[in-house]
Amino acid sequence: MSINSDDSFPNPKARSIAFQSDDRHRVNLLSGPPETRFLKSGYVKLSPGESIGFHNTGRGEEIIVPISGEGEVRFPGAEPLRVSPGFLIYNPPETEHDVINTGEGVLEYIYIVAKSQTPDP
Amino acid sequence: MSINSDDSFPNPKARSIAFQSDDRHRVNLLSGPPETRFLKSGYVKLSPGESIGFHNTGRGEEIIVPISGEGEVRFPGAEPLRVSPGFLIYNPPETEHDVINTGEGVLEYIYIVAKSQTPDP
Repeated sequence: MSINSDDSFPNPKARSIAFQSDDRHRVNLLSGPPETRFLKSGYVKLSPGESIGFHNTGRGEEIIVPISGEGEVRFPGAEPLRVSPGFLIYNPPETEHDVINTGEGVLEYIYIVAKSQTPDP
Repeated sequence: MSINSDDSFPNPKARSIAFQSDDRHRVNLLSGPPETRFLKSGYVKLSPGESIGFHNTGRGEEIIVPISGEGEVRFPGAEPLRVSPGFLIYNPPETEHDVINTGEGVLEYIYIVAKSQTPDP
């Protein structure tokens, strides 16, 4: 079945997902197909000084929506970006990055990753 | 140039985008290529009773992250979903929906739409 075949798409359902009452540090909210076609999403909660660890989203791309607290997205060899409510952060594909809580309270954010739908080159 | 050619992708940059000081009711935060590869995002602010209007995201799919207030996502012929901080809402492709402020304060949310990267069938 071709990746470009419309028939290969799952048939996801509209959903509302609660996340803030969860005590875990990282919670999958949407895990990709069949829940979605190409989006994944999760909730992350970091204690002061804690970081998620350097990673990248491969050929996908990511948006971070801060919920509470203060932090930074850090990149090797580039200026950090502020993570705070009222800001939205965009991470391009193949971009190594870390998120660290630089504040005195809990840092909470939602991440949304759109997987690449095209075959690997 | 093929849609599947990796060379056809733009080369987007990591960004942090402020949105909450804006007085407009709808603000584009990420408008798609060349700012991103396939994500779009925006900020919406609705007054009590106000709605964004029925629409769908075509073959793309959408996540809504509520920032403040109380509302509903409504669908023709289906149960509404709650829009409120602490919830994340997923809208599948080709799904007609509206967002309405059902509370007494302002309803604010971020939407993230992942465009389909595959050719139309």
